[in-house]
Amino acid sequence: MTKSVDAQVSWDDKQAPSTAEQWVQRASEVAAVLAVDAVRRDRDANTPYAEVQLLKDSGLVTLLAPAEHGGGGQPWTTAYRVIREVAKADGSIGQLLGYHYLWAWAARLVGTPEQIAAVEEAAAKQRWFFGGAVNPRDQDLTITDHGSHLSYNGRKSFSTGSKVSDVTVLEGVLEGTETHVFAIVPSRQDGIVFNDDWDNIGQRVTESGSVVITDVRVDWASAAGFVDKVFQPRVYNTLNVPAIQLVFVNFYLGIAGGALATASTYTRDKARSWLYSPYERAVDEPHVLDTYGDLTAKLWAVEALADKVAEEAQVIHDNAEAVTERQRGEHEVRVAAVKARATDVALEVTSRIFEVTGARSTASSEGLDRFWRNVRTHTLHDPVAYKRQEVGVYVLRDEIPEPTWYS
Amino acid sequence: MTKSVDAQVSWDDKQAPSTAEQWVQRASEVAAVLAVDAVRRDRDANTPYAEVQLLKDSGLVTLLAPAEHGGGGQPWTTAYRVIREVAKADGSIGQLLGYHYLWAWAARLVGTPEQIAAVEEAAAKQRWFFGGAVNPRDQDLTITDHGSHLSYNGRKSFSTGSKVSDVTVLEGVLEGTETHVFAIVPSRQDGIVFNDDWDNIGQRVTESGSVVITDVRVDWASAAGFVDKVFQPRVYNTLNVPAIQLVFVNFYLGIAGGALATASTYTRDKARSWLYSPYERAVDEPHVLDTYGDLTAKLWAVEALADKVAEEAQVIHDNAEAVTERQRGEHEVRVAAVKARATDVALEVTSRIFEVTGARSTASSEGLDRFWRNVRTHTLHDPVAYKRQEVGVYVLRDEIPEPTWYS
Amino acid sequence: MTKSVDAQVSWDDKQAPSTAEQWVQRASEVAAVLAVDAVRRDRDANTPYAEVQLLKDSGLVTLLAPAEHGGGGQPWTTAYRVIREVAKADGSIGQLLGYHYLWAWAARLVGTPEQIAAVEEAAAKQRWFFGGAVNPRDQDLTITDHGSHLSYNGRKSFSTGSKVSDVTVLEGVLEGTETHVFAIVPSRQDGIVFNDDWDNIGQRVTESGSVVITDVRVDWASAAGFVDKVFQPRVYNTLNVPAIQLVFVNFYLGIAGGALATASTYTRDKARSWLYSPYERAVDEPHVLDTYGDLTAKLWAVEALADKVAEEAQVIHDNAEAVTERQRGEHEVRVAAVKARATDVALEVTSRIFEVTGARSTASSEGLDRFWRNVRTHTLHDPVAYKRQEVGVYVLRDEIPEPTWYS
Amino acid sequence: MTKSVDAQVSWDDKQAPSTAEQWVQRASEVAAVLAVDAVRRDRDANTPYAEVQLLKDSGLVTLLAPAEHGGGGQPWTTAYRVIREVAKADGSIGQLLGYHYLWAWAARLVGTPEQIAAVEEAAAKQRWFFGGAVNPRDQDLTITDHGSHLSYNGRKSFSTGSKVSDVTVLEGVLEGTETHVFAIVPSRQDGIVFNDDWDNIGQRVTESGSVVITDVRVDWASAAGFVDKVFQPRVYNTLNVPAIQLVFVNFYLGIAGGALATASTYTRDKARSWLYSPYERAVDEPHVLDTYGDLTAKLWAVEALADKVAEEAQVIHDNAEAVTERQRGEHEVRVAAVKARATDVALEVTSRIFEVTGARSTASSEGLDRFWRNVRTHTLHDPVAYKRQEVGVYVLRDEIPEPTWYS
Repeated sequence: MTKSVDAQVSWDDKQAPSTAEQWVQRASEVAAVLAVDAVRRDRDANTPYAEVQLLKDSGLVTLLAPAEHGGGGQPWTTAYRVIREVAKADGSIGQLLGYHYLWAWAARLVGTPEQIAAVEEAAAKQRWFFGGAVNPRDQDLTITDHGSHLSYNGRKSFSTGSKVSDVTVLEGVLEGTETHVFAIVPSRQDGIVFNDDWDNIGQRVTESGSVVITDVRVDWASAAGFVDKVFQPRVYNTLNVPAIQLVFVNFYLGIAGGALATASTYTRDKARSWLYSPYERAVDEPHVLDTYGDLTAKLWAVEALADKVAEEAQVIHDNAEAVTERQRGEHEVRVAAVKARATDVALEVTSRIFEVTGARSTASSEGLDRFWRNVRTHTLHDPVAYKRQEVGVYVLRDEIPEPTWYS
Repeated sequence: MTKSVDAQVSWDDKQAPSTAEQWVQRASEVAAVLAVDAVRRDRDANTPYAEVQLLKDSGLVTLLAPAEHGGGGQPWTTAYRVIREVAKADGSIGQLLGYHYLWAWAARLVGTPEQIAAVEEAAAKQRWFFGGAVNPRDQDLTITDHGSHLSYNGRKSFSTGSKVSDVTVLEGVLEGTETHVFAIVPSRQDGIVFNDDWDNIGQRVTESGSVVITDVRVDWASAAGFVDKVFQPRVYNTLNVPAIQLVFVNFYLGIAGGALATASTYTRDKARSWLYSPYERAVDEPHVLDTYGDLTAKLWAVEALADKVAEEAQVIHDNAEAVTERQRGEHEVRVAAVKARATDVALEVTSRIFEVTGARSTASSEGLDRFWRNVRTHTLHDPVAYKRQEVGVYVLRDEIPEPTWYS
Repeated sequence: MTKSVDAQVSWDDKQAPSTAEQWVQRASEVAAVLAVDAVRRDRDANTPYAEVQLLKDSGLVTLLAPAEHGGGGQPWTTAYRVIREVAKADGSIGQLLGYHYLWAWAARLVGTPEQIAAVEEAAAKQRWFFGGAVNPRDQDLTITDHGSHLSYNGRKSFSTGSKVSDVTVLEGVLEGTETHVFAIVPSRQDGIVFNDDWDNIGQRVTESGSVVITDVRVDWASAAGFVDKVFQPRVYNTLNVPAIQLVFVNFYLGIAGGALATASTYTRDKARSWLYSPYERAVDEPHVLDTYGDLTAKLWAVEALADKVAEEAQVIHDNAEAVTERQRGEHEVRVAAVKARATDVALEVTSRIFEVTGARSTASSEGLDRFWRNVRTHTLHDPVAYKRQEVGVYVLRDEIPEPTWYS
Repeated sequence: MTKSVDAQVSWDDKQAPSTAEQWVQRASEVAAVLAVDAVRRDRDANTPYAEVQLLKDSGLVTLLAPAEHGGGGQPWTTAYRVIREVAKADGSIGQLLGYHYLWAWAARLVGTPEQIAAVEEAAAKQRWFFGGAVNPRDQDLTITDHGSHLSYNGRKSFSTGSKVSDVTVLEGVLEGTETHVFAIVPSRQDGIVFNDDWDNIGQRVTESGSVVITDVRVDWASAAGFVDKVFQPRVYNTLNVPAIQLVFVNFYLGIAGGALATASTYTRDKARSWLYSPYERAVDEPHVLDTYGDLTAKLWAVEALADKVAEEAQVIHDNAEAVTERQRGEHEVRVAAVKARATDVALEVTSRIFEVTGARSTASSEGLDRFWRNVRTHTLHDPVAYKRQEVGVYVLRDEIPEPTWYS
């Protein structure tokens, strides 16, 4: 039997994964550990220190980091598959890992060449886990310019993973301007106080609560992408939105896949055929087979699109300097489309599995509702109606979305 | 502000409701009380003594009882509307009330004229709340015949409401036979031990746990419908299935209606229009209006069918002796149809409301997921696929369902 | 075997229907005649003179007319059921009959007491069939005031039924104003030329083509609702929109019901179980039963809402003078909701029936696609998205729709 | 403006496509020609001689044929994309081309090495167009063994494309046995009489009518896969089912894509915003954008799965000798899944496009209903419920489908 996350789980460093398949295999080993206590973890919603340690021990946290610094040197296509795999067992940890990848990548998206080099080396060598306090909807961190350094003050409503992280990507607005400045700061410092107020119906183990920021200091040299206090824009800067939205897609699909697999096991092992059924086993009932077939087919289709869009993303990441606004825009539209589909299919799968597990599967001890609660919670991150609209505008008016914090 | 259920709520007996509209109004006053603490009640899942007392104090428990004994003398059409109204605020209490109506009616369905008279008078005058330990899927109560009386022994997996009731409808099988015997027994007696093991994801306040029955004594004279130890069958006996299934339908619709109303209030009072929306208010966003319009229209349609089928039921109740197998069968098909529709629409409404309340509405303190959990849990009572099949067999093969415990 | 519409079909006048049930029975006799050649009629799309004669001979055309003039004296609730019944056999003829009822009722909606009296007597005694050339989207008929009379000139894009009618409701705009004037004029006159250009994919037998109007004369005394050239507004004027939209709903439901019944017969009589099915008959296949059950339940729900809303409409018609704007508005919202539901269910039923009739049922000679083509065509009359929005605005903002030509 | 198919269209042989992209480009040029008269072609349903000539002239018919014989030497992945592209303009011609590919491939699936070599050379050099008279549901061709040759006699209910083909794949059962024998025979011979009785609601230009076979002679040497009158089975024989089902999937997706593109053009060029819309253009209406976004996203997801499954198929085709029963079975399950999804999405897209084109788009001259009629007709080829079941059995019971004529 697989050990739980509280037991010491270790991997032999000599057998570090090197191919995408091996990384996915490693992720599925991590998932097996996480699955042991997933129901309890969702219920208790304790701070996932052990879980983040597991992500570090397994090497998953440095999957995207350059091989020269000891990272996995894998492309985003692998990262997305790994996120999905982890989320099958635990949607929260899948989200934490996905956000980590994005925050860790933030330097490349926004930083200067020097910043990129410095961050990537430190992150890989010290196996940093990244959190973020970045939500642009509320402009609530104010930055004061002290000449050679900046200080951040204010309150962020949401700061996913920051509490369990080593470093946090902080975002605020420079006083008296509309200039946003990103920086990476140590997560454990007096100026960062976590309010531990994330108590939501789903994704309960993501430590997404609010945070108070008091005089957090950032050298101008660390202000991501700034040279002589002036931001150096390029199209690749705006890749953060499609990149993180594709993270979302992949943990939604992971949760849905986990729901379907968990339900299958239940139907096989515990479900009974109906009292008046001509079939002896639940797994032979026509409506059960039809439902599993339908849900599986639906999930496979969206997974295929997610994989394809991840490949399209990779082409852009591989040509970061050359990406044009049109390419970026068309990619964002593809991401919007798969976001819409992943949302729909994940909600459908996680709600309908009960039809094929039956009445007794609603016992709290089974925890089968956590899948739906997880999907339901995060799919509201930004309204999917606007995603469909992005796609509609593109096919109908041949217009690409303007880069914003959400498109 | 409405008082919570823990405060003393009382109604002036001189203003007892007399019309259906007045009863529904009374139910909505009860619902207002229940709504105050509905989120907390779902979370804590304590035994709902105060809530049952409220149902008694409000007079709702005797709504169906004959006026001559102080009951409301109302038809089932009113009862169904009242169940729906109460369930808007609390699905569990709506279920408890609905089951109570059915158990209280059980005497009429199955009993001899003498039994009916005796039970109805006692029930009305003493405002009995009824529970039941009747689930035929597992034949787990054995009845021993001691000559003039019977004794029940065994364990029932589910006994909704019994713990908070005055009397319980007990069902078992006479040793060495396949004869089921129903009887009404006092709920508080040494031979009935509640295991308090109902801990499910929804309908958490229904006290639906298992119960151990030890030497519970029933006089043969109280064995419902038996004369000289022989059961007197009539078609009306088999009305229990459509009657209780229509109870289900109405609390599903109530829960869905409650979800939609609660969400509307949230959207109006707390939701914000989207960051990049051209609209200032959430209530003006096209996708929000579209979704509310769609869900409302869907709910109204099924409510209309539920009302119509309730009227069809009432015709049968009004002619209990005359009902034919064909009439009963066609009615059961209609009930099966509305059960299928109520299941679908309640699941859709309770899952989709979040699209129009937004990300912050997933806070546990809002408790908006309870509606979906409630519907998801109880709609698995028996597989809805078999309900669709009943309807299909009828329209395609012109065959009515054979009366069973579930059809 | 039932005779086709081309044979002489006659009903004994002594057995004229008097109850709603008898009228619906009469309608179903008419439907049986229409069903004989429905496939051919859809294909050829000839002008339905014989069909309109059938509606007259059966007495259906005067169903709503006052009994004192020889009409049926029935309420709208009966008319809606009759429309549905006729549409089961032929969606086009159902539409023609429904429009006829509305045009025939137009006098009551808009006319002065004198106009109402005159029109109703003439219409009933002469069994007028009504057409209309009223479509407000394009203001394309200009009215010139010649002192004591008016003349209409222009072109209407659509004039449903006018070609096969005795009288036509004409609508235009008084030159130099925004005043619409309705009037009833003889359909067969030199000033009215039909372009016979209705060639659409569905509702092909409705003669809905364009019409050229040249100097059609109307006395001011016949200008509906005008006294001394000034229109006399009342809330009841605006009932035309919900009344006709409910006509739409009922022929959509009729078409869907006809589709389901026709498919059932096909499945029973012609469909084979699948080659590798464990069942010998198609009518025993689980997916076939499930689909019929699902579609039937969905249809029943919307029919129930349609019936309920028709009853609500009748209350307004019974109190034409007293109806308030709020009552009218809430009724319009209910109509909008059932329109949305009828659209969805009729499209679903008419498309999905093929799943349970199978590959050979796509033979043109079966004509099973006509149901979908009919529904698809007319449900675009005005965008159903705006209907959902009406409902959404009402439940969310508690606002009723402003009366327009479409709400 | 693009020429119609009746004009001489020619491609410069020196610019024959060589990459997959070029072949798809060529297919889209063919599609542009076919699109010119697609509405008329659907209506008239004449025998598509010119269209098949176009497929030959464009080189598409030999796309899969070995380069050494002058064929395109392309893999199936390209063929599937080409089918999709052609079907965007004309579903019937897309089907004909797809069936042609499968029949032309039949030799490789079933033949001996000698047969394969002979057929491929002849087919490529003479640009044979293949038809088939193979439908196993009805065992209706009887084969008599005359020693060195066989003769086929009987009637096939369906023989898609045979009438417009050069050669026909004939299938029958050897008298007194259950042995099926396939052979390729000249389509134009006295023993093959086409009944021209394909008159269905969709895919009207596929010449799928019945055919009478009289004494059609086949040498034993040409009996596909037979050596000394004994069939040589291998797993690859059974690839015909997934291969043709994936053909279906791709022309369904092509038809859906064509529907969406045609509708987009209509909405842009002809649709008006609603009378009471705040928007001036239809392309700005929120519900229009939402619908296009939704349908596009749905289509993209299934296209992605179709592409992925085509790649999985290609792996098998590339290793024809090595394929195991398990591989074949898992592939069939994947094909079943994408068949189910393609069916659903194609029906939804082709029915819902009207919501965003509006009432006037139902004019017969627009022919917008042909997409739905085409999809509706062919998706009944075999019941999609059994496809979902295949998938369900696999995920739930870990069983692969037994190879049959349909799985």
